[in-house]
Amino acid sequence: MIPVVSIVGRSDTGKTTLIEKLVRELTSRGYRIGTIKHDVHGFDIDREGKDSYRHRAAGSRITVISSPAKAAVITDTDRDMDIDEIVFKYMDGVDLIITEGYKGNSKPKIEVYRKEAYPDLLCTADDNLLALATDIIHDLGVPQYDINDAGGLATLIEQKFLREGEKGGIALEIDGEMVPLKPFISSMLTRAIYGMISSLKGCGSPGKIRIRIDRE
Amino acid sequence: MIPVVSIVGRSDTGKTTLIEKLVRELTSRGYRIGTIKHDVHGFDIDREGKDSYRHRAAGSRITVISSPAKAAVITDTDRDMDIDEIVFKYMDGVDLIITEGYKGNSKPKIEVYRKEAYPDLLCTADDNLLALATDIIHDLGVPQYDINDAGGLATLIEQKFLREGEKGGIALEIDGEMVPLKPFISSMLTRAIYGMISSLKGCGSPGKIRIRIDRE
Repeated sequence: MIPVVSIVGRSDTGKTTLIEKLVRELTSRGYRIGTIKHDVHGFDIDREGKDSYRHRAAGSRITVISSPAKAAVITDTDRDMDIDEIVFKYMDGVDLIITEGYKGNSKPKIEVYRKEAYPDLLCTADDNLLALATDIIHDLGVPQYDINDAGGLATLIEQKFLREGEKGGIALEIDGEMVPLKPFISSMLTRAIYGMISSLKGCGSPGKIRIRIDRE
Repeated sequence: MIPVVSIVGRSDTGKTTLIEKLVRELTSRGYRIGTIKHDVHGFDIDREGKDSYRHRAAGSRITVISSPAKAAVITDTDRDMDIDEIVFKYMDGVDLIITEGYKGNSKPKIEVYRKEAYPDLLCTADDNLLALATDIIHDLGVPQYDINDAGGLATLIEQKFLREGEKGGIALEIDGEMVPLKPFISSMLTRAIYGMISSLKGCGSPGKIRIRIDRE
């Protein structure tokens, strides 16, 4: 539902640097951007001695630290989550999501290439490759931008994904698994649930509906 | 829907230490525990130089770091979220949630008291006070446990909140606000949505249903 673009590439090509530039550029154009970093090796984010670190070390499965301006969630996962699952569970209220990594996913991609880092490209045109950000021209039928041209790439992203705004729709998760829905079923469920909810007192014209049902 | 107990008390009474002991004790009894730390002054969790830190510094509103065993989410918030809102948005798959802080919330509370830290109690019996964990006996009509008696407090929590398991139900958020539902409406919505979803191919008997609808 929220458009997703993946920035992929080999190690040390400058993926994080390009993402910084794209986030700055798109934010300055008025969009709210979310990001996902795929870290297959695991990561340490909390600091020893902090209260949240102590909660986790004692065995808490999910720890949230909440303040008036910012919140953080650290949670155990039982597998490497898919992008759609991450977006469904944790990301709301943004116009676009940029991921670092997730070459194996089917989302549209921009590959970052730097000839000093590695001789070959990571992707082929079959990988849903939207563009290259590169320091040399490759023999590949996709748009190619200079590796520092964040403005040009932001305009490409804007034209492809942001002009029409968020398109809406329904997403469904059952027992922790995303359920793919055909257009007819999506439309039927959306109308039925929207109809019920909007008939509740004080819920006249909802924009975003979020529902959790747990069986008794 | 998931039971919540708040550990409250004045500064330096040992709230985090008691939470560590309770999480360890309840985890060893087979329960999955989540925790929430209320930090009214804000907090730093990410480290300068890390990729996720760079995403945030560039302006990302929500950053997720995802790995096979663990995920972290750091998000901007527009206000100090209520416990129910935090649970709805971020916490799933746990049997009990223990919060550090949130004295002002109506959830059941255990106050930690240490006479060296402060002369007075923070709560009165009116604050939905379940028990005291204290190093002296107070003249207050609630159960009182030794400040180190995590086993006794865990048993109290188990008896009050965990014996019947998670009770199920429906929670609804519209445009970012939790919507209180009367029992009749809860039941009607739950049955209608459950009926529709369970009639979908391959969704025979769902335990947990999560739905996101965004208006087109």
